[in-house]
Amino acid sequence: MKPLGVGVIGTGYMGKAHSVALKAVGTVFDTGLRPVCEMICATTAAGAAAKAKAFGFKRSTDDWRKLVDDPAVEAVIIASPQRTHREIALAAIAAGKPVFCEKPLGESLEDSEAMTAAAETAGVVNMVGFNYIRTPASQLARQIIESGEIGRVVHLRAEHTEDFFADPEAPAYWRTREPGSGALGDLSPHIINAALRLVGPIETLVADVQTVHETRPGPDGPERVRNDDQGHFLCRFEGGAIGSVTFSRVASGRKMGYAYEIYGTAGALRFDQEDQNALWLCDSTKASPREGYRKILTGPEHPDYRAFCLGPGHGTGYNDQIIIEARDFLQAIESGEPVWPTFRDGCEVNRIVAAIRQSHAARAWVRVGDLGKGTAAASSS
Amino acid sequence: MKPLGVGVIGTGYMGKAHSVALKAVGTVFDTGLRPVCEMICATTAAGAAAKAKAFGFKRSTDDWRKLVDDPAVEAVIIASPQRTHREIALAAIAAGKPVFCEKPLGESLEDSEAMTAAAETAGVVNMVGFNYIRTPASQLARQIIESGEIGRVVHLRAEHTEDFFADPEAPAYWRTREPGSGALGDLSPHIINAALRLVGPIETLVADVQTVHETRPGPDGPERVRNDDQGHFLCRFEGGAIGSVTFSRVASGRKMGYAYEIYGTAGALRFDQEDQNALWLCDSTKASPREGYRKILTGPEHPDYRAFCLGPGHGTGYNDQIIIEARDFLQAIESGEPVWPTFRDGCEVNRIVAAIRQSHAARAWVRVGDLGKGTAAASSS
Amino acid sequence: MKPLGVGVIGTGYMGKAHSVALKAVGTVFDTGLRPVCEMICATTAAGAAAKAKAFGFKRSTDDWRKLVDDPAVEAVIIASPQRTHREIALAAIAAGKPVFCEKPLGESLEDSEAMTAAAETAGVVNMVGFNYIRTPASQLARQIIESGEIGRVVHLRAEHTEDFFADPEAPAYWRTREPGSGALGDLSPHIINAALRLVGPIETLVADVQTVHETRPGPDGPERVRNDDQGHFLCRFEGGAIGSVTFSRVASGRKMGYAYEIYGTAGALRFDQEDQNALWLCDSTKASPREGYRKILTGPEHPDYRAFCLGPGHGTGYNDQIIIEARDFLQAIESGEPVWPTFRDGCEVNRIVAAIRQSHAARAWVRVGDLGKGTAAASSS
Amino acid sequence: MKPLGVGVIGTGYMGKAHSVALKAVGTVFDTGLRPVCEMICATTAAGAAAKAKAFGFKRSTDDWRKLVDDPAVEAVIIASPQRTHREIALAAIAAGKPVFCEKPLGESLEDSEAMTAAAETAGVVNMVGFNYIRTPASQLARQIIESGEIGRVVHLRAEHTEDFFADPEAPAYWRTREPGSGALGDLSPHIINAALRLVGPIETLVADVQTVHETRPGPDGPERVRNDDQGHFLCRFEGGAIGSVTFSRVASGRKMGYAYEIYGTAGALRFDQEDQNALWLCDSTKASPREGYRKILTGPEHPDYRAFCLGPGHGTGYNDQIIIEARDFLQAIESGEPVWPTFRDGCEVNRIVAAIRQSHAARAWVRVGDLGKGTAAASSS
Repeated sequence: MKPLGVGVIGTGYMGKAHSVALKAVGTVFDTGLRPVCEMICATTAAGAAAKAKAFGFKRSTDDWRKLVDDPAVEAVIIASPQRTHREIALAAIAAGKPVFCEKPLGESLEDSEAMTAAAETAGVVNMVGFNYIRTPASQLARQIIESGEIGRVVHLRAEHTEDFFADPEAPAYWRTREPGSGALGDLSPHIINAALRLVGPIETLVADVQTVHETRPGPDGPERVRNDDQGHFLCRFEGGAIGSVTFSRVASGRKMGYAYEIYGTAGALRFDQEDQNALWLCDSTKASPREGYRKILTGPEHPDYRAFCLGPGHGTGYNDQIIIEARDFLQAIESGEPVWPTFRDGCEVNRIVAAIRQSHAARAWVRVGDLGKGTAAASSS
Repeated sequence: MKPLGVGVIGTGYMGKAHSVALKAVGTVFDTGLRPVCEMICATTAAGAAAKAKAFGFKRSTDDWRKLVDDPAVEAVIIASPQRTHREIALAAIAAGKPVFCEKPLGESLEDSEAMTAAAETAGVVNMVGFNYIRTPASQLARQIIESGEIGRVVHLRAEHTEDFFADPEAPAYWRTREPGSGALGDLSPHIINAALRLVGPIETLVADVQTVHETRPGPDGPERVRNDDQGHFLCRFEGGAIGSVTFSRVASGRKMGYAYEIYGTAGALRFDQEDQNALWLCDSTKASPREGYRKILTGPEHPDYRAFCLGPGHGTGYNDQIIIEARDFLQAIESGEPVWPTFRDGCEVNRIVAAIRQSHAARAWVRVGDLGKGTAAASSS
Repeated sequence: MKPLGVGVIGTGYMGKAHSVALKAVGTVFDTGLRPVCEMICATTAAGAAAKAKAFGFKRSTDDWRKLVDDPAVEAVIIASPQRTHREIALAAIAAGKPVFCEKPLGESLEDSEAMTAAAETAGVVNMVGFNYIRTPASQLARQIIESGEIGRVVHLRAEHTEDFFADPEAPAYWRTREPGSGALGDLSPHIINAALRLVGPIETLVADVQTVHETRPGPDGPERVRNDDQGHFLCRFEGGAIGSVTFSRVASGRKMGYAYEIYGTAGALRFDQEDQNALWLCDSTKASPREGYRKILTGPEHPDYRAFCLGPGHGTGYNDQIIIEARDFLQAIESGEPVWPTFRDGCEVNRIVAAIRQSHAARAWVRVGDLGKGTAAASSS
Repeated sequence: MKPLGVGVIGTGYMGKAHSVALKAVGTVFDTGLRPVCEMICATTAAGAAAKAKAFGFKRSTDDWRKLVDDPAVEAVIIASPQRTHREIALAAIAAGKPVFCEKPLGESLEDSEAMTAAAETAGVVNMVGFNYIRTPASQLARQIIESGEIGRVVHLRAEHTEDFFADPEAPAYWRTREPGSGALGDLSPHIINAALRLVGPIETLVADVQTVHETRPGPDGPERVRNDDQGHFLCRFEGGAIGSVTFSRVASGRKMGYAYEIYGTAGALRFDQEDQNALWLCDSTKASPREGYRKILTGPEHPDYRAFCLGPGHGTGYNDQIIIEARDFLQAIESGEPVWPTFRDGCEVNRIVAAIRQSHAARAWVRVGDLGKGTAAASSS
């Protein structure tokens, strides 16, 4: 077991989650590399120092370049705002260091394509943080689909819905100000990633996006909201299935509405992240009066569950998803083999987001492949 | 309590349901008119006679014109295949008799417009059979929305999904042969009607429709399927909300997937016909750590429940929906006042179906108001 | 199809339900006998006349003896308060008329034994109204158990819980005044009947019963409650299984909490009347990572469903249970063969209730067979 | 932040969980003490060394006495089989070291009383590992009950059911051989602890316990099972409520059936560990036609959630419960103040288990206070 110095940029929600994961991953999984919490970066030196103490890092900085260039930092985790992703990732790649970047990869498709090209040219390990797809239940969903148990997929109904802006009086802040931080930019990538992972590439789509509350209380009175509250799209997958996907930050009552229903010619699946330890499966080949959706509680026979707990139904949680990501990142570094989802996969998600924007603007169906330079045409996996 | 002679055309699934309802409605509800099962019509004289005996009708016929013209038949219920609706309804209207027509009203928008115009010109009572919206739970949903309890509606997610053609080997029969009997023609009207009833008129939409299994086993080998298996559309409502609606007859595991989620600025609703005695409500105005979706079990305090049962949670079923329709039809006849949903309302559903077909064909957004002659522009109620 | 004059005693909740059922049963099912609503009896002549009009009966009376003796009344349905059951039933039996009596059969075990003995001696058709066990789902539960699909039953967990007296300020009325109308006397019989029907005879039990709110607001100030609010018992079935059963009228939030979980050596079942169209089944013989409780939606392949509706998942409701009872009563009359549940079956339920009372009083386990005269030792079925 | 050397005895299921928790706790929570994984003990030296490497401990041993006596081990976690608890705990107490012992505390009530007396006399920090009660949802349940939101509790229905021995052919091993490792000894303590925590002390109870499968396949043919498969009890709490509790290891389909329903005079709660991130609450004081059980998804406003994640509904899992226990153990050590649940609390659970055994043997109600020496009469908290 070899130590690996890791630097984390960002000390918010995701920065903490990655810190917890770095501490726990080597005990949960049998990893060849053992991460060492080497340095953490925040926007102020004092803040960074406090977080280093709280999260258990050796050192801290308010300058991400110092972290990236530090010789003891052997791998970089980017958990800072999305507009910073490109610049930091390119620097880390230039330094030849493995880089894990939170979703969405770049703020724009162009950013993501640049990051992907750089990482692939340099040959450094690169990953994107789509954590929700890492639950044992969603991994099981993929296993079931890949094995053909539900036949050929014909329809996907999916959503990523939350309600943190459902209240019209919720005040404006950076989340309402940055164009890429609306429901489309911030929430849809998770469920688009799931759609691509579970059903395959999307060929064409038509979308509609909406700002429900056009102003919100600001420091100086009503302030214009600069991004979207909700949207949805219809699509056709390359494999022939059709898809209906919604995303929202104003879906009253929805806390973690990352959910999908996948209908195949031989069965169907349902999943809702709000009950993340269950996957619902229907086997329609039996046509039996004893059939119906069955609630499979994840357990040690399902992907990645056993490392956390030997008892079925005992359950994993949010931070366990990040621990699984950490395991994969360490494995990729150790083996030098790409592990899904790479920057290329993250870039494909950005391509769909760009297609949604274009479809919305043009009020028309768009062909996804027409977006971007097409440098990231094939997915890893 | 005055007797009213009723004639029922059709002895299948819906013909039987209406017969049961005619027997029970006067005992369940305090209706001024008491229906008498006067005559029933089937395709053969022997079949009609057998059904008259089984369902408790005085007389039978294999000629719907005889039924419509019979002086003892004072009101007509059309429960025959949709392609027959127009001709029968026009005859009943011409005879000046109140007419109840199963959904979808006409096979085409043109048919529905003709039927609506005829009924309104003649001034006869006319209704369409959208039974699912008549559960106490869905009536409660409307009450909640109308009273403003969930604020302004911003998103509707709805579906009518079943799985009776999920099996690719299910053989071809009339349901795969008549153009209007696909998922779009047969299933979508129910949920479109719900969308219009609960959220209001639709302004624009974009749709996609698909035949998943292009051939099915026929009497002489593989037979081409002449209608669609599934589809979906995005829409904008006149009130500003957006909607995502799916319909399918190949949704494995779905038996009665008439379901909707309605998000408002102050709360949300969820309903699934597979658990028809519950409505889920979230009140987001409280922003309380005690809030969440609550499962309201329908009871005597909710619309039309008390007549069936005094105990909450004891539940109503499919046939009870038809009894509620029968009560409304009798009331409309007695009062001479139109009761929702009239032919005009059914015609609006056909207009949406026509818009879906056009959007699919043109691969473009369409304005609903551009479809048809616009003779049925305003809804009743 | 031969007409059968029926008299109904009682015009409340259950009297109405039976009236609706008498109207509908002949159209829903193919019954050889067609019930005619001949006479209805209420406590006042005016009330009876009003209900005869409302429910569609030919005649009315305020004297149940007149109804029982009327030559046109060929069968009697007793839906009056339980303290009247014995006298009316004995009179109907004496008149040689088939009799259907609402649950609980007698107010006491002694009453039930007398009624059972009289009915059996006279050889008249006799039934008891345990309606909840008549849903297609609960009939399916029995089918599954009988066929051995879940193996040998080892545990039953069951309840009949409602909340109509959960509010301590709910006022006193006859339900708090009659000793037999507490949760034990009024609610437990339904779920005890289910336990006996699904798992078999009970050998021994130990029970505890409680009046939670000892006084309630009465017309002249606080009034003593004369019966119980809740209770529970542990039991051993003759077949070796153990059972835990609760009953309550103060179970906040429970509206129709007639529910059971049955664990066998090869699988398990779960049912809750609040979602009466679903039965949950787990097949544990597979030991497969794809197994879990599956939600079977009742449909035309399940017992008695097809007569109501051809579509699976469309659902039956409370009144449909009474229609099934009516069909059985008519069949028993036509065939002369006893149909479960007979008075003897109702008597066995009373024996358990008596055993619960005795166990509670003695603070000890009791042997059920030691209660009563043992005249009704074997169940029909 | 001061380091604290911790020794863990046991490298199975729970030993690993505690190791993960020791790694993560300081990053998740702001603890004054930072645990150092000092030494781990397994039954063989090689096994211990391997686990030390896998779990990230500095040193290892196959002799728990060495661990207990090691000066660098400042606190001891006992995660070894229950029959070893007493001896190890007494040694750790004798060494003056804080001790955390997995449930059940002792193998017998006598053991637990001895351990409690020793710990209290010595004044060392002592805790018992009842992890399930530590979910944010169950902590919220307690908060709701304590604040009076559901009024006075009148009924508890609870269970701890799993199915790992549902298959009659599952072979015999230590779990079927040690008298204290049956469903009563191993599973019931969790749910008894919940009952005591949520509803208060139990005054009297009556129980029944059963071995469903009396033999199981052993190495030399059928082997006698030496403990129980399932059982249940009725009880009266000191506060007046009644309780019905079941426990089973043969409950087909139940994976983590730690579940309770608590009915109060003003509302009710429901929880099932299989969906551990939700608590169901019904407020019956409103008597409103909008009321029903609401599904509260735990979030940062609920106990201990915020440290794991800022997003509501994102969910915690099994290992997070152990992290919360670790935080409490560290706090108790730092503050010197007892933190619930202490040995005294664990001893009360053993007292109930002993009462169940006695009630079963005597076929009689027993008074809980009559069991044991009564040295541990009052609970901490």
